[in-house]
Amino acid sequence: MKVLMVLAHPRRASLTGQAAEAFATAATERGHLIEWADLVAEGFDPVLREADEPDWNDGCKVYSAETRQEMVRVEHNDATVMFFPVYWWSMPAILKGWIDRVWNKGWAYGEHKFPQRRVWMVGIAGTLTDAYRKRGYDSAMQTLLDVGILDYCGVAERRVELLFGSIEGEPYPTEILAAARHLGSAF
Amino acid sequence: MKVLMVLAHPRRASLTGQAAEAFATAATERGHLIEWADLVAEGFDPVLREADEPDWNDGCKVYSAETRQEMVRVEHNDATVMFFPVYWWSMPAILKGWIDRVWNKGWAYGEHKFPQRRVWMVGIAGTLTDAYRKRGYDSAMQTLLDVGILDYCGVAERRVELLFGSIEGEPYPTEILAAARHLGSAF
Repeated sequence: MKVLMVLAHPRRASLTGQAAEAFATAATERGHLIEWADLVAEGFDPVLREADEPDWNDGCKVYSAETRQEMVRVEHNDATVMFFPVYWWSMPAILKGWIDRVWNKGWAYGEHKFPQRRVWMVGIAGTLTDAYRKRGYDSAMQTLLDVGILDYCGVAERRVELLFGSIEGEPYPTEILAAARHLGSAF
Repeated sequence: MKVLMVLAHPRRASLTGQAAEAFATAATERGHLIEWADLVAEGFDPVLREADEPDWNDGCKVYSAETRQEMVRVEHNDATVMFFPVYWWSMPAILKGWIDRVWNKGWAYGEHKFPQRRVWMVGIAGTLTDAYRKRGYDSAMQTLLDVGILDYCGVAERRVELLFGSIEGEPYPTEILAAARHLGSAF
């Protein structure tokens, strides 16, 4: 499968970047072909402007050139995997804006559904699973990302995975990399 | 009270912009003083880069000039109100990035808590309350925004309000404006 790896961290060498690399390496060993979309490095602009506002009366609106270019990049692949650090129990703005702009009406939902069958999201979380569970952040994230975005856009093979403890010291960072590798092997 | 009105829509004349104006007018009649922060028009960059990454070993990190400028703008006011269109059961990237960058460690949480006692978030939702309730989007949003951001940052007088039906036709847009006015009078 051709896989678009969307990375949403300002440093490629970050733990998030390393986890994405571990995933990609394992997926490559399985025979998948990786194309990288390193959004911050590429200078992607996450601000949705008027040209990318959905038109509720026109299901075939032609969006901005940058948005259409991202749509083409998705269409050239069979699957998408997003790796991001969890900021405020959600994605960083750069990835939120990639969704806001590119996963647009008439292409990802509405007249047409998202053009790929398989999309995974992998969030690298700073703290531990108990801290998330205590406040219900984990299930709220599943509701908004898995149900609210992936299922809403008709993605059949979807998965939202959180890997916990990036700022909690060892053994967590090592475990995160191992889990990312494992996910890549299972892709 | 001096109130920073943060607007996160590409068109000031949008329903979200009109609702923010209605809120501001009512709040002004109550004696509040409004300062506008129209993030898209001002060209705010929502991408968190290395200069704004929190340092987990240094609670007093000095962030980028643009981020510090936004912090000063908050500090010059007594309260903040954010008006935004709900994109994907969350804020648009421009506002998410304002939080990502400005509500940073050592200023909004950690060594210091957010410097204001009162912060409200008002989201203008496209569809109706039943559609949100059916999937649990409304309670997930309360968990992530009210508990996960405002309460986490020690905001004592906080409120996350969703006004529904912006794309459902009348009477909803009119009701949204009335509700925004009502919120402004109650601020």
